[in-house]
Amino acid sequence: MNQDRILVTYLTQAKDLRKKAEGIAVGMTVGSWTDVPAAKQEELRPYLGEAVDVTPLSMLESGETRGFVTISYPTRNFTPDIPSLLTGIFGKLSMDGKIKLVDIQFPDSFSSLFPGPKYGIEGIREATRGYDRPLLMSIFKSCLGMPFDDLKTQFRAQALGGLDLVKDDEIFFADDKAPFLTRIQAFGEIARDVEQSTGKRVLYAANLTGPVHQLIDRAKQAVEAGADCLLFNVLAFGFDVLHRLAADPDVTVPIMAHPALAGAFYPSPDYGIATPLLLGKLMRLAGADLVLFPSPYGNVALDKTEALQLSQNLLDPSVTLKRPFPVPSAGIHPGLVPQLFADFGVDQVVNAGGGIHGHPGGATAGAKAFVDAIAASVQGRTLAEAAQDSEELSLALAKWGGK
Amino acid sequence: MNQDRILVTYLTQAKDLRKKAEGIAVGMTVGSWTDVPAAKQEELRPYLGEAVDVTPLSMLESGETRGFVTISYPTRNFTPDIPSLLTGIFGKLSMDGKIKLVDIQFPDSFSSLFPGPKYGIEGIREATRGYDRPLLMSIFKSCLGMPFDDLKTQFRAQALGGLDLVKDDEIFFADDKAPFLTRIQAFGEIARDVEQSTGKRVLYAANLTGPVHQLIDRAKQAVEAGADCLLFNVLAFGFDVLHRLAADPDVTVPIMAHPALAGAFYPSPDYGIATPLLLGKLMRLAGADLVLFPSPYGNVALDKTEALQLSQNLLDPSVTLKRPFPVPSAGIHPGLVPQLFADFGVDQVVNAGGGIHGHPGGATAGAKAFVDAIAASVQGRTLAEAAQDSEELSLALAKWGGK
Repeated sequence: MNQDRILVTYLTQAKDLRKKAEGIAVGMTVGSWTDVPAAKQEELRPYLGEAVDVTPLSMLESGETRGFVTISYPTRNFTPDIPSLLTGIFGKLSMDGKIKLVDIQFPDSFSSLFPGPKYGIEGIREATRGYDRPLLMSIFKSCLGMPFDDLKTQFRAQALGGLDLVKDDEIFFADDKAPFLTRIQAFGEIARDVEQSTGKRVLYAANLTGPVHQLIDRAKQAVEAGADCLLFNVLAFGFDVLHRLAADPDVTVPIMAHPALAGAFYPSPDYGIATPLLLGKLMRLAGADLVLFPSPYGNVALDKTEALQLSQNLLDPSVTLKRPFPVPSAGIHPGLVPQLFADFGVDQVVNAGGGIHGHPGGATAGAKAFVDAIAASVQGRTLAEAAQDSEELSLALAKWGGK
Repeated sequence: MNQDRILVTYLTQAKDLRKKAEGIAVGMTVGSWTDVPAAKQEELRPYLGEAVDVTPLSMLESGETRGFVTISYPTRNFTPDIPSLLTGIFGKLSMDGKIKLVDIQFPDSFSSLFPGPKYGIEGIREATRGYDRPLLMSIFKSCLGMPFDDLKTQFRAQALGGLDLVKDDEIFFADDKAPFLTRIQAFGEIARDVEQSTGKRVLYAANLTGPVHQLIDRAKQAVEAGADCLLFNVLAFGFDVLHRLAADPDVTVPIMAHPALAGAFYPSPDYGIATPLLLGKLMRLAGADLVLFPSPYGNVALDKTEALQLSQNLLDPSVTLKRPFPVPSAGIHPGLVPQLFADFGVDQVVNAGGGIHGHPGGATAGAKAFVDAIAASVQGRTLAEAAQDSEELSLALAKWGGK
């Protein structure tokens, strides 16, 4: 593609889609065009947007046409950061009737100005020594208000099952009973202790919170305290904070992006930002090493096409940035592992909360059931076969189903 | 209200709204309840949410009921910042089917932990010496790519008309032709020059941009360069950045919150965050001194009830924080001033772009037409009467209508 242009696709509706596209191209860049004197036009032309494609989808009863419009914006219109990008392509436009931001195509010249993931899939596989299989992550059953000793007990129980990662609950901000740096140190000790007995290293992802102007320092303090990984509520704090964490050479741990608040953006067909862009392309650009998103399973779930597109955007080999791990989350139990494997492949993190803590044998057995289900899927065995050698998996399948 | 609880209202739908409310109260706080041992319940009870109100609105064909549910959350669940608050009350919940965050009621004990506006209406009236009337603001016709000399010419032309404020275009990030600090100094000189000839002081609001971890320093540099005011894309950078700017004693200028990207949140009836909360209560809490929002006039506009509620939330005297100026924006021309005055009262900023630059006599005349329209409204005169003494207003009414 043209290295000097960004292509932005919107889903919208209008009496005349082409005219609407042309209005966006001018209105979001130089403001007005036809009433600009010719000499001034030459000066402003390098900043002018251009309507490059219109794809009608359906005629509405109102007489309007619904469809995609694609605008080409000069990269020079933006500073290389997501606040500039989103304000420039969707800032005031987001308030201009029914319009949803669905995709952005970046030239390498622009995306290479972003950090992208510092570690990505390869780096996290090295850190966990987990190769050629989906990794496994567990979430604390609850963090808020829990006595520190209970959290330590929970951490140990999960880790003993052979997990690759354990993460905080994303609502864990008020942590006076188990302060950030203190628990990083404490869980680090438990992880080393568990590794001595099981041989398996587990990474702990602590929730990075605090005043926004102190987050980079807090992240560095976490690194000094021995942190393995940081969980981060990217949308609550802003994409640019992730960007600056990922770009800082002293923040030497992977960053796990939580999708909290994403549902305020993506589910409407008429408004907002589509999730393959929001949690896919933008998270990768800004530097997430792992990206959680709603799985396409369960009662309330992400549309499967969207979830797969999101994952593909994280893994797209044509983008020169590192690739973050997709982490399809919510409603995951061991019986779903073959489906997860079929849908998302080897490069994913299987992430469970209730599916581990709710195991009849407790969290250690819950983790073990997943470990065995993942091994079976990679080996091409059915869960029913694998359950013959795994009491934990057998109990899990009896409780949640799956084969 | 109870000083230890925050009340949060959602619009949602469910087969059983009460049950859904109870699920939210537990799920967004301690995670689970009925399977928690009694001794542990006593430890966690201080963190437990409570379903306090359910208001059904309508039965849907699906058999579900649509309505409001209100949950009471303990203030201790949150650190006093908006990322913690939004993650804690809407983070994962936003992805859980049709649910919109519509209102939050804060006890003083919690809102007093936020900075609120540093200047507010009274401070800005002092700075502009504009009392007992709506203030008047103009937007540059275009900023992106414009030669510096053209911007200077535009600034002077607008200022000469007797405005109180001039603001940058919010998409003005790539400003190499007219860098941030350089243009603050240059426009400051022009403003002083204009004041010498007209006696009227005009404030210039420069768009604060840059890497998020440098924004506080950039704001301080702007103050040192003589800035009057800063424009800020709050949603693109995150509420907490506004909070920390407002809380910093060395950022000694008012902050004007732009609503760019707000349309990604508020317009859907089923999802997102309602605008009286998003651009009203939360902007005030985080410390905006002026808040732009879509006016309820024009083709594509904010619902009038929502716009008025938003404005009321900014001005609510029962909140102990200072009050930001409401700035209903877009589609504003001099003929609308009596309507604006009737709807939003004396404590507002009348904000126009095309309604000033599009005046047949140019931007100076365009500003003068607004000045005269505002004076007429305050004096209780019709625009038709006022136009008899104002050629500029007369021309504006002939072009855009209104009386």
